[in-house]
Amino acid sequence: MARVAPLSGFPEWLPAQRVVEQHVLDRLRRTFELHGFASVETRAVEPLAQLLRKGEVDKEVYAVRRLAELAAEDAGGAGGSAPGRAAPAPAVDDHPGDTLGLHFDLTVPLARYVLEHAGHLTFPFKRYQVQKVWRGERPQEGRFREFTQADIDVVGAGSLAPHYEVDLPLVMIEALRSLDLGEVLVRVNDRGLAEAIYRGLGLADVPAVLAAVDKLAKVGPDTVAALLRERAGADEAQAAAVLEFAALSGVDVAESVLAAAARHGAGSPKLAEAVDRLAALVATAERVAPGAMVADLAIARGLDYYTGSVYETELVGHEGLGSVCSGGRYDNLVSDGSASYPGVGLSIGVSRLLSRVLGAGAVTASRAVPTCVLVAVDREETRHRSDAVARTLRARGIPADTAPSAAKYGRQIRHADRLGVPFVWFCGVDGRSDEIKDIRTGHQHPADPTTWSPPEADRLPHVVGT
Amino acid sequence: MARVAPLSGFPEWLPAQRVVEQHVLDRLRRTFELHGFASVETRAVEPLAQLLRKGEVDKEVYAVRRLAELAAEDAGGAGGSAPGRAAPAPAVDDHPGDTLGLHFDLTVPLARYVLEHAGHLTFPFKRYQVQKVWRGERPQEGRFREFTQADIDVVGAGSLAPHYEVDLPLVMIEALRSLDLGEVLVRVNDRGLAEAIYRGLGLADVPAVLAAVDKLAKVGPDTVAALLRERAGADEAQAAAVLEFAALSGVDVAESVLAAAARHGAGSPKLAEAVDRLAALVATAERVAPGAMVADLAIARGLDYYTGSVYETELVGHEGLGSVCSGGRYDNLVSDGSASYPGVGLSIGVSRLLSRVLGAGAVTASRAVPTCVLVAVDREETRHRSDAVARTLRARGIPADTAPSAAKYGRQIRHADRLGVPFVWFCGVDGRSDEIKDIRTGHQHPADPTTWSPPEADRLPHVVGT
Repeated sequence: MARVAPLSGFPEWLPAQRVVEQHVLDRLRRTFELHGFASVETRAVEPLAQLLRKGEVDKEVYAVRRLAELAAEDAGGAGGSAPGRAAPAPAVDDHPGDTLGLHFDLTVPLARYVLEHAGHLTFPFKRYQVQKVWRGERPQEGRFREFTQADIDVVGAGSLAPHYEVDLPLVMIEALRSLDLGEVLVRVNDRGLAEAIYRGLGLADVPAVLAAVDKLAKVGPDTVAALLRERAGADEAQAAAVLEFAALSGVDVAESVLAAAARHGAGSPKLAEAVDRLAALVATAERVAPGAMVADLAIARGLDYYTGSVYETELVGHEGLGSVCSGGRYDNLVSDGSASYPGVGLSIGVSRLLSRVLGAGAVTASRAVPTCVLVAVDREETRHRSDAVARTLRARGIPADTAPSAAKYGRQIRHADRLGVPFVWFCGVDGRSDEIKDIRTGHQHPADPTTWSPPEADRLPHVVGT
Repeated sequence: MARVAPLSGFPEWLPAQRVVEQHVLDRLRRTFELHGFASVETRAVEPLAQLLRKGEVDKEVYAVRRLAELAAEDAGGAGGSAPGRAAPAPAVDDHPGDTLGLHFDLTVPLARYVLEHAGHLTFPFKRYQVQKVWRGERPQEGRFREFTQADIDVVGAGSLAPHYEVDLPLVMIEALRSLDLGEVLVRVNDRGLAEAIYRGLGLADVPAVLAAVDKLAKVGPDTVAALLRERAGADEAQAAAVLEFAALSGVDVAESVLAAAARHGAGSPKLAEAVDRLAALVATAERVAPGAMVADLAIARGLDYYTGSVYETELVGHEGLGSVCSGGRYDNLVSDGSASYPGVGLSIGVSRLLSRVLGAGAVTASRAVPTCVLVAVDREETRHRSDAVARTLRARGIPADTAPSAAKYGRQIRHADRLGVPFVWFCGVDGRSDEIKDIRTGHQHPADPTTWSPPEADRLPHVVGT
């Protein structure tokens, strides 16, 4: 193994950091399961043709090919090596026509999973999914090429009740609050409202307007106004009006949206209906989780498959990190021609969240290993006695390990100390009793492996704020 | 989403099957953590150059490339498209010289992780790792292109005590037994013993002999004898002797190995030493886990990095499935030139194991969703009351969901029944008390969400034998 270097954009955690990640994933899983979401994992690859239909991500997709195929092509001097060929990558041998790519989110794979397995699922189908995804973006703080997402979605057969558009962000608020990272704020908008406003302003290219508004937080209002003029066919007044709407946010925006619409002559029954829908959603959330959700007409979302509510979530005090949990309602993503499966879902960017809390040193693990007790070894000849003590402790749910070697006790204690293991066990010799030492306090006392227990907080590693 | 078809070799589980997989992974994690193994995850990709050094898997590796690069190449008519180019795939843009591939096991990534992070690890370093791996093999029963492995390894700095060569398979025996799939049998051999025997027989090309013996279970002794003659330079007598040794197995093989060595004039101090080592290993295992490990001189293992013990494990009664847990000791895999990091590790093929137990219908989940209680909804206008009951139950650790719609109660009960949810909750109207119904028995009685609890066995889905 000659050359070893980190790959930028492919983060890896050290064991103590991984303890924090596991804690986060365990908490998320617990919340999702308490709410009745079933776990699903999908394969890492999808046919490229499926991955390239969702806008904005085409160039970021990773194509995947077997070396055997590449070798066969090179050997055969296949036509594929002629310059100017159209196909981005040849087909996988026994999946003709299917060039494969790594999934860049968990929503497109869910859509395919639902269609493929519809006959075996009960609808509305609620699933959570925690997996790695891959995007070939330029790496920067909080942006990775391989990262973990934690998604929840509910997908209906034919229709999906609107209450899920408030239920799901509330689950995510509960899940994020369970991580003890401070408060979160979900910003919600409605694609139907956005469309009614933009059409009311006389702007027909709604996707172009959304794409410009989506950049507001990053590039500021002047650049967005320019984009609206250049790419969405807006004049000065229309661009100004779009920015005026985008500035509206709060728990109750109905009145100010309607007033702005009246001012700009953009009112319509569709707009009024969409405002009511958004207001009702935020009002319901406010009753259940006060202060955790606001309407925000600047929320646009880059992906083009959303048709209803769209969400972004900031960690209060870490707004610069960007959205840590996003999603929306999609009515037309999943369809096999005859049946359609509308859904709503949100996705937590676990790696981004972790990179911030670990990078800031905001949390750490009480120790880097599960071991609660290191059983010292007197001599290699009596290792079997130490092993037996460790087995007895494990059978009682206490993580225990035996010392690597029968070194001097001082060295064995130092090994435990380096790992953060709180207790060292000494097997009694010459008829004396076993003893256990808390190496943090130095306190040592007789103990029996069939009855001794650590304080509950010491049994497993836990996460501590710093 | 036009065309949807399964990809052969890329298995996906339905929600009820996923419950079984999660149960398996939870049990494995628990055993590994009780033994003090720290969790590690590595990135999915490694530089291709690292992946192609380990023998036998070259053509099975999947190369990974960003579409943006492929597009740039095509547009530029780059020199790379000339026929007969040597490199299997071009370099990734900002990692010059590093073409990436998906890892095909978790041992090679561990080796790189240890070298990259050695300064932050405490040795001997014990880690477990549960991740997907990818191999472009032809799919068949129990062989997948994407599958989950669960590995444990211990890696020392400079040296590694021999007791780990029996400790680690014992952990795997405990882990596999915890899955309630019946008995397991670990077959162990020693590469040093194999080398001493083959050299003693006058066969210098030890890797060629190992490669032939590795095929014994699959192709039978006659074909192995032919392979030994054709590829390992053996004559009839040498081939027969190799097969004679390969037939030796049992808890105590020392005597028969030494007798065979004497018969063939193959004895040596190295051979005697290796026999002792193997015998001591199996004897230790026999004391701790009687009947779970035998020495077996037919165990060779395909990967060329093993230098000491090598292991394969069969599920008793499912021997046709092949090895479900394999590994060995590797002294030279991890080295940065100056320091070396010998290790020993084993890997459970989780997907293979699951494909068998799920395919055979040997186990199933008590239900496909986590939900224990479905709270019925009387009218959409009072949904908030049902939501409040569900919240109260969840706060007490009871997975609860609210009915999708305020349909007739009979339909809401059928929805619960289809999901396998055991209880349906009815909110009292007109001052009457809430009631809970066990839909399996039909028994219904008044209940308070702040005090009612399900039987512990019903709280979460569990795995049941069929």
